[in-house]
Amino acid sequence: MMGATRVANYDESQLQDFLQQCRCLTDSELDHALPPETEVPATLHQAMRYAVFGGGKRLRPAVCMAAAGWAGSALETARPAAAALELLHTYTLVHDDLPCMDDDALRRGRATTHMVFGEATALLAGDALLTLAFEWLARGGGKASVSSALQVCALAAAAGSRGVVGGQVDDLEGEGRHPDWQVVSSIHARKTAALFRVAAVLGGLAANAGQARIDALAVYGHELGMAFQIADDLLNRTASEAVLGKPVGSDRDRGKLTAVAALGESGARATAHRHADAAVSAIQPFGQNSANTVLNGLAKLSVERSH
Amino acid sequence: MMGATRVANYDESQLQDFLQQCRCLTDSELDHALPPETEVPATLHQAMRYAVFGGGKRLRPAVCMAAAGWAGSALETARPAAAALELLHTYTLVHDDLPCMDDDALRRGRATTHMVFGEATALLAGDALLTLAFEWLARGGGKASVSSALQVCALAAAAGSRGVVGGQVDDLEGEGRHPDWQVVSSIHARKTAALFRVAAVLGGLAANAGQARIDALAVYGHELGMAFQIADDLLNRTASEAVLGKPVGSDRDRGKLTAVAALGESGARATAHRHADAAVSAIQPFGQNSANTVLNGLAKLSVERSH
Repeated sequence: MMGATRVANYDESQLQDFLQQCRCLTDSELDHALPPETEVPATLHQAMRYAVFGGGKRLRPAVCMAAAGWAGSALETARPAAAALELLHTYTLVHDDLPCMDDDALRRGRATTHMVFGEATALLAGDALLTLAFEWLARGGGKASVSSALQVCALAAAAGSRGVVGGQVDDLEGEGRHPDWQVVSSIHARKTAALFRVAAVLGGLAANAGQARIDALAVYGHELGMAFQIADDLLNRTASEAVLGKPVGSDRDRGKLTAVAALGESGARATAHRHADAAVSAIQPFGQNSANTVLNGLAKLSVERSH
Repeated sequence: MMGATRVANYDESQLQDFLQQCRCLTDSELDHALPPETEVPATLHQAMRYAVFGGGKRLRPAVCMAAAGWAGSALETARPAAAALELLHTYTLVHDDLPCMDDDALRRGRATTHMVFGEATALLAGDALLTLAFEWLARGGGKASVSSALQVCALAAAAGSRGVVGGQVDDLEGEGRHPDWQVVSSIHARKTAALFRVAAVLGGLAANAGQARIDALAVYGHELGMAFQIADDLLNRTASEAVLGKPVGSDRDRGKLTAVAALGESGARATAHRHADAAVSAIQPFGQNSANTVLNGLAKLSVERSH
């Protein structure tokens, strides 16, 4: 969808293979973490699984696993963190779609959770997904540890009132206001980039990376997340409904504070590329290897994706 | 409000002193954990503090601290767990009061959070409180540890789809159904007793208690929680609105599955006392000391309270 970015070359099919592998690992871990649909209360567990297995791209888990690989570990090391990230991400979607929030009936081309299961069950399913995210992360694949406690701290800090939830409040309160880029950027940083940032950090923590690498991954994740959200703003304006899985132009109709509203289409596009480039630069000092190539590829993908 | 129970003697004013001390410790810990009201997004942080500092009795923190004392530690050891329990308990109240759930306008004689701050902010404040509970617990007073990771696992398991959230779903779905005591009891065990159970367990974990004591505390907390919820059902039917801080008889009006509906008033009263006695029995094998007396006093209080 966008022009070329400066990021290093990567093999497109190799990246797709990597993403496919992450999806498989994450989905099997999620299936393991979530209670079966038949367990009481069945409606609750059905709603949780409906929301989680709704065709998500599992990008945050991929960032987490790529970070673990970059820090020298097997991708599997980051499985609990990858599942926790996706559980947490899914809860934000379920709650954001509720009538008192964005009031969305469609997500990824399917009815949203509250449209299928009702508002109360959707609210509670979101609560349970958030809770399960922390349980699964703390358990650390069957071995609670200092590292798993630190990972819970990092994920909660990113997700709470100073992170995702805070950004969501400012996003809602900002509807209809003048789109100043500094304000929009602060909302994007918390609402979206905080979770990508912690995805990369959790990968590093799971791999027992040193502080210098953790710091670099934090910058990488933040910059990638900013690029991703700006690309999202652009897609909301320009993609087709079939591709988006929801109505086109809904952000503008609501007077949402988006990068496009603040910077215009070409300004937003240029800014997204600058962030993707900054992501790549953050990890460059550690040298070039195949894991590096995957992180570069993900940064490129975050701005060049078509959905 | 009820007849005498078999629990051991305790000094009423000594128990009140203990509760007062726990409230002070918990409230100062909560004040430390919660971002200031002036920090952006200010409405979110105001809503979080409004909900948390709303005149709660801090009973779950008291159970947690009493358990830590019983297991041989200073009460302060359990401060992070006590705050986490109250943050989590508060989130359940905020979400339960929402229009799509119980739709309550009053709680403890004050307007509920969504009546003051709006539905979206109340929903997000609840999300942020839940998230902060896990962050604060995992941090473990500045020292993330294996113990703090285990405490997160225990709290999340109690709070999730197999605990509080699951009980809440069955509670909502049960409205208007035939009040079978087995069903009611299963709902009470998850919706209410699970949090008292884990309160006692977290106190034991914070004190590094051995498995036998942890197991005894789990039984104690469960039985106390059952007694507490049945007493709550009785109060909802018999207390005055001034004492309750909300309309009397609301459970019956909604066709809620309560102990009173299932067992009648005297049957419910007898059952509450049996649970309080079972709580006391669970810790008896470990001998009698002053910490034991506090736990006994709390068990008695759970059935004899007037609000």
